[in-house]
Amino acid sequence: MGISTIKAVVQYVGTGYFGFQRQAAGRPTVQGALEDAIAALTGERVTVTGAGRTDAGVHAHGQVIHFRTASAIPVDRWPAALNSRLPRDIAVVAAEKVPDTFHARYHARSKVYRYTVWNSPVPSPFWRPFSWWVRHPLDVAAMREAAAPLVGRHDFAAFAATGSSARSTVRTVFSLRVEEEGDPTGGPGRLVHLWVEGDGFLYRMVRNVVGSLVEVGTGRAEPRWVEEVLRGRRRELAAPTAPPEGLTLWLVRY
Amino acid sequence: MGISTIKAVVQYVGTGYFGFQRQAAGRPTVQGALEDAIAALTGERVTVTGAGRTDAGVHAHGQVIHFRTASAIPVDRWPAALNSRLPRDIAVVAAEKVPDTFHARYHARSKVYRYTVWNSPVPSPFWRPFSWWVRHPLDVAAMREAAAPLVGRHDFAAFAATGSSARSTVRTVFSLRVEEEGDPTGGPGRLVHLWVEGDGFLYRMVRNVVGSLVEVGTGRAEPRWVEEVLRGRRRELAAPTAPPEGLTLWLVRY
Repeated sequence: MGISTIKAVVQYVGTGYFGFQRQAAGRPTVQGALEDAIAALTGERVTVTGAGRTDAGVHAHGQVIHFRTASAIPVDRWPAALNSRLPRDIAVVAAEKVPDTFHARYHARSKVYRYTVWNSPVPSPFWRPFSWWVRHPLDVAAMREAAAPLVGRHDFAAFAATGSSARSTVRTVFSLRVEEEGDPTGGPGRLVHLWVEGDGFLYRMVRNVVGSLVEVGTGRAEPRWVEEVLRGRRRELAAPTAPPEGLTLWLVRY
Repeated sequence: MGISTIKAVVQYVGTGYFGFQRQAAGRPTVQGALEDAIAALTGERVTVTGAGRTDAGVHAHGQVIHFRTASAIPVDRWPAALNSRLPRDIAVVAAEKVPDTFHARYHARSKVYRYTVWNSPVPSPFWRPFSWWVRHPLDVAAMREAAAPLVGRHDFAAFAATGSSARSTVRTVFSLRVEEEGDPTGGPGRLVHLWVEGDGFLYRMVRNVVGSLVEVGTGRAEPRWVEEVLRGRRRELAAPTAPPEGLTLWLVRY
């Protein structure tokens, strides 16, 4: 029986997990839950590799994983077979066979993240686990102005978490959009979504960029300050990291 | 110092509660959480009355409550003061002073409920706590046809929970709409929302109506069967109750 490589698209609510990547026993992770479900289904202990190693509390709408298996289960059966063995906050929404050379992380051409701010004087119990609650009305035009210089190929050292081990801090941001959405439930608040697509992101880079753009949105900094932070290339120049619950790995392109 | 009556609009995610109404100690309820927050704020033990006594697992986007207080806190301060003392899955979004004769339940002219079905071959971790997952594609046109005879003043005994104590089982349904929404995240699923407005609802009536309409939507029953169930006035004729997590008390009109 041959070995197959399976690529799958996975959604999860990250609230209950210590991030994607497997950790010490007793700390639930998305990778661990997926590997356990595969073991329950096939009896194999496989390694699941994700395109993005999302942090604790971060969600995924379109995480992509791969793993290798000797199982003869037809590929179109994998989603339902795994979903019946997964906790309800994780779901496999698609699966396909791919060449054995496929690698979910190394072969990703780009990733799209969405960061959501709940911008309202009152909290939202519904958006709470999926957003950063910012009470002060955000100046979205100023945020767009501040975001523009970040698009392109730059050294993003100013937005990398201190102590991160990446060899190079140069990344390409293909687009960075700030979108407003009225309160979907007709209430007094609104949502501000920050959509960012890039060829890769440094550890906590998206949340650090969002922290600085919100600093501009609340008026605590001028739009051009964000470009100064970028050029300064020192983490301590930027604003604090935005909280994880607003972040969703939206999709991965290959 | 006088006594004031405060009316407030409250949102909550019902997942973690044994419903709205206070119960034995150790079983968290929304009413209990609100009364505890008021006690923490003012030192008073008040009784909070809700317009709708939502069941365990049911949510509220616009529950309305009232309570009487001797506190001198200005009414526009109440939402923030209570929210800082409430668990994060409950929020007070508005408050106003009302005449002492006001009663949140008795004076409600109508209530609007939304029931959401996640209609997709794959589960949604994001919609899971807020919907009923129905895999079989729903025939929305058939559901609309089945729903039409329920609008108006009828004896809804067939849709009342067995053992419910209401004196009369006659209620007026002002409207009952079935709305489709494509998967907001661009995925393969869709949402089917059932919106119902009425002057009042028997215990579990909305969830029983939804159970029967979904029976039609999946093709297990013909549209005209729902009218037969209504006319039959016996609970055992109807389909099983839809699960609570799809239900949201949307708003209350006075």
